[in-house]
Amino acid sequence: MSPGFLDQQLAFLREIDQLKSVVRQSPLLNGSRKENSAEHSWHLAVYALILQQYAAAEIRVERVIQMLLVHDIVEVDVGDTPIHQTGMGGSQAELEERAAVRIFGMLPGEQGAALLELWREFELAESNDAKFAKALDRVQPLLVNVNTRGGTWSDNGVTLEQVNERYGPTISRGSPTLWAACEVLVHEHFASQSTGIQDDA
Amino acid sequence: MSPGFLDQQLAFLREIDQLKSVVRQSPLLNGSRKENSAEHSWHLAVYALILQQYAAAEIRVERVIQMLLVHDIVEVDVGDTPIHQTGMGGSQAELEERAAVRIFGMLPGEQGAALLELWREFELAESNDAKFAKALDRVQPLLVNVNTRGGTWSDNGVTLEQVNERYGPTISRGSPTLWAACEVLVHEHFASQSTGIQDDA
Repeated sequence: MSPGFLDQQLAFLREIDQLKSVVRQSPLLNGSRKENSAEHSWHLAVYALILQQYAAAEIRVERVIQMLLVHDIVEVDVGDTPIHQTGMGGSQAELEERAAVRIFGMLPGEQGAALLELWREFELAESNDAKFAKALDRVQPLLVNVNTRGGTWSDNGVTLEQVNERYGPTISRGSPTLWAACEVLVHEHFASQSTGIQDDA
Repeated sequence: MSPGFLDQQLAFLREIDQLKSVVRQSPLLNGSRKENSAEHSWHLAVYALILQQYAAAEIRVERVIQMLLVHDIVEVDVGDTPIHQTGMGGSQAELEERAAVRIFGMLPGEQGAALLELWREFELAESNDAKFAKALDRVQPLLVNVNTRGGTWSDNGVTLEQVNERYGPTISRGSPTLWAACEVLVHEHFASQSTGIQDDA
């Protein structure tokens, strides 16, 4: 190993420290502040570890965890794009690809190339591992919302139909079992909203 | 799978959201605030992924990553214990063990038991996987300190000798290569402190 090899790796690890300052729309469950993309990535990796049995097809959980650890790293350059903003245009995808090439390109050749491929696999959402990882990336904010009186749904006036449309396909492709469980929670949430049960506090 | 099984898993995933509110001594590299234990765990898992080649002995990196993802979960109950506070007494270790039993015990039987064992393996620091994980858990804050003009060392008046004593054995047991690199950075840091080079800004 040349000294430059480790230097490159340490520079990459310093660079991604910035992900701790990328603020997402979702709040913490205790409502104290918004979640950042680094702690979100940690939570998702633990989601994969705990919920792996519910994947729609055979997965290699260690690959799913690696994908989730690096899936948001492009946000160091491009920031977080909330799901409730208008669909991600081609230019946004291009910006993210450029960010991935730059940031993973800080690593030594083969290592950087392998992680860039893993990130692209996640974005494509075609492999079993990527479909399950993408599903979890929708499950986690959905659960935050049902556990925080609607969270970003209330903030954005999102309806039951829009939740089903925006979360359902991705989650059910990766895990029909988790989508079935989510659907129950989502229905309970919107039912309580319309009866005002949650406004009694 | 019984519905109660998934309910237990989701309750665990909600519970550990609290780790995002456990504040550590180390700052972010941009100095904007202190790091929390959830984003620290994410960063360490990526450290393991990137630096695995430097482990002192053969490791299974997927186990190291899993250990690092859950290593701080007990802090939901007991908070963070900074390295520069007086040595962790027996009672602190007992409190952490009790927290681990409670928190991992929220999971279904076998899954909770397996993660509790993984956490205990990390704490024991005897297996190759645990020794490498423990080394990274020291490398990351050391690098934060050398990259933030001393960080918690400056705050606590920590000397070069104390850094060597508190970080050296754990890091060199898990990775002599990383300790060699760290030693250079630590010496450069203290040399610049004594000549006042870093105070020019």
